[in-house]
Amino acid sequence: MEAYKISGPQLIVDRKKCHLNIESMSNKAKGNNLIFRPHFKTHQSRIIGRWFREYGIDKITVSSIKMAYYFASDGWDDILVGIAYNPREYTLYEKLSGKCRIIATVSCPDTCRILAGQCGFPLEVMIKIDTGYNRSGISWDDFESLRACIKHLSANNRITIRGLMTHDGSTYGLNSKEGILKHFATSVQRINSSRANAGINDLIISVGDTPSASIAENFTGIDELRPGNFVFYDLMQYLIGSCSFDKISVALFCPVIDKRPNSRTIVIHGGAVHFSKDNTIVNARHVYGMVARTDVNGWHKAEDEIYLSSLSQEHGIIDCSNNTLLDEVMPGDLLAIIPVHSCLTADCMGGYILTDGKVIDHLRKANYDSEFSIL
Amino acid sequence: MEAYKISGPQLIVDRKKCHLNIESMSNKAKGNNLIFRPHFKTHQSRIIGRWFREYGIDKITVSSIKMAYYFASDGWDDILVGIAYNPREYTLYEKLSGKCRIIATVSCPDTCRILAGQCGFPLEVMIKIDTGYNRSGISWDDFESLRACIKHLSANNRITIRGLMTHDGSTYGLNSKEGILKHFATSVQRINSSRANAGINDLIISVGDTPSASIAENFTGIDELRPGNFVFYDLMQYLIGSCSFDKISVALFCPVIDKRPNSRTIVIHGGAVHFSKDNTIVNARHVYGMVARTDVNGWHKAEDEIYLSSLSQEHGIIDCSNNTLLDEVMPGDLLAIIPVHSCLTADCMGGYILTDGKVIDHLRKANYDSEFSIL
Repeated sequence: MEAYKISGPQLIVDRKKCHLNIESMSNKAKGNNLIFRPHFKTHQSRIIGRWFREYGIDKITVSSIKMAYYFASDGWDDILVGIAYNPREYTLYEKLSGKCRIIATVSCPDTCRILAGQCGFPLEVMIKIDTGYNRSGISWDDFESLRACIKHLSANNRITIRGLMTHDGSTYGLNSKEGILKHFATSVQRINSSRANAGINDLIISVGDTPSASIAENFTGIDELRPGNFVFYDLMQYLIGSCSFDKISVALFCPVIDKRPNSRTIVIHGGAVHFSKDNTIVNARHVYGMVARTDVNGWHKAEDEIYLSSLSQEHGIIDCSNNTLLDEVMPGDLLAIIPVHSCLTADCMGGYILTDGKVIDHLRKANYDSEFSIL
Repeated sequence: MEAYKISGPQLIVDRKKCHLNIESMSNKAKGNNLIFRPHFKTHQSRIIGRWFREYGIDKITVSSIKMAYYFASDGWDDILVGIAYNPREYTLYEKLSGKCRIIATVSCPDTCRILAGQCGFPLEVMIKIDTGYNRSGISWDDFESLRACIKHLSANNRITIRGLMTHDGSTYGLNSKEGILKHFATSVQRINSSRANAGINDLIISVGDTPSASIAENFTGIDELRPGNFVFYDLMQYLIGSCSFDKISVALFCPVIDKRPNSRTIVIHGGAVHFSKDNTIVNARHVYGMVARTDVNGWHKAEDEIYLSSLSQEHGIIDCSNNTLLDEVMPGDLLAIIPVHSCLTADCMGGYILTDGKVIDHLRKANYDSEFSIL
């Protein structure tokens, strides 16, 4: 791989694996007659975004109005902002709505009241429903608050209530396909109960999480699918069963900077500013990444399960207490590490290198048309 | 504060507090006849770097060769790269050494052997000693490995061994001044033992962590001080006793996006991509930040201790189960959150706004002279 010519930590993307992941999820959405609106918060890259277009995808989800501007600057013109609207962003939404279809998300009656008072342009909104994740949105069984939202929004005839959406991230904490499927079924049932009790018609149902979208085969009761992570997958998705190892399309390549025989550890240049500090638990220990085997074709599952056991700002520690990796490497060797949470690792790295050596963009470091530029 | 005119999460810097922190630490170093070489990995900002110059500071530490190039581009010409050298970076060190004094860090015999084989230009190095943190470097009592490093390096007469350095981050996990002072004394004793057994003369001793540098008054046995975090401090430093609350010079301002009376939580736009996922434990619970009270003069300790209790990519959850904050805010209101670990939050945010509204730079988003530009 050309990408091996790096001197410091770099996030390498296997384009072929990404394409297979996009194609597979796109086909699943089509086969189930779902609107496919993938979440671009995972890759945050115009170049990777363009790969989706090759599969006919023309609707996207983003996680901030800033990200909406970024993708609008590359021609995307049907964008759902998945994070709840805050009234300080009014002029940003107004300006962008003149250039493309922009759909806002609202998640509490107060926001709906304020937005209805502000809104002087045609705006579509999705109401966020909490189906059990307990993070944000109207509780699925709090019909009173849902109706309060609808009442507030309906007072402004420029606003169109498009539907109900949920992101049930609880599935990230489950570790069996059966558990994920069961949770997904409950989540879908709950948001449909919200719809049945909303008091208005023609609301679409939009759902999002990658574990459910990857594993489920039955999408009855759903109109729109918004997974994001599937484009890359990662160690967490592999461990909970969302994907096979060979679908993981990103790896952080890090140089060895220290060998410590006394503690049987390898130190890499690759820390919290590269991986993020997201972690998962394997055999009752926190792990921050997994070492993959590499060859000219990229990365593959290694025979030994070797983990990144701790991170500080720029350093990562690889535990070699039960393996021979320590004896096989030298300072300057590159190790390919599968990140725990690819969305956060990509956001930390702010850029990618393809396996052929080409550098591609990420919102973090992008310079784009000032017409779409915001602070 | 002018900075209140923001629409999304922004990291606000109180310049006056930063100046006081820099002045105080600089005076402490001077008063103890120490070389002061502050670590710039915390702020990673050319503008903030210039504030240090006002106190006569002309030597710095950085945590990557990339960061060395960035600060060299702003005229810094005496730079210690605190992370261990990896042989892939050879030409980057060589190129920069032609422009300024660059000091490399080495942390194992293999690296020393490889570097001695590579080095065709005059280079100063520091040898990293592990005084108990167990992260990186030669164990303080492993005199054999230390002498192996020195033997390898001495084989190349272009290399000058400048001294021994340690970063004993163990102090971040202590929560009493007494504990930190005791640990610091042990660490200093250990690295002096390494020096006494190195077999060569004229090695300086360089130490780094902010808790020790902030609390200690006795610096006997030390030649150089390299703290970084003190310029901002943060919630972790406050909780372990390194600083008073009024010395914390950064706060992440986040808009309220959701109010959830049923769970008594507030949702803010401010998540892992803004704060990082670093956390600390308060009353047996993980916390990701603390809400501060604000007025026109900035932020202050609030009467209630209100914490950010969880984070996902863009969302943060504030626990209001024991306070009335939920009843006092509306969507769009800004909350000032003191981050757990300011170095990582600054790295996530990649930029700052001063309280007067001026935007200042961070390496993450900087464009700088291509003469100093590296991938």
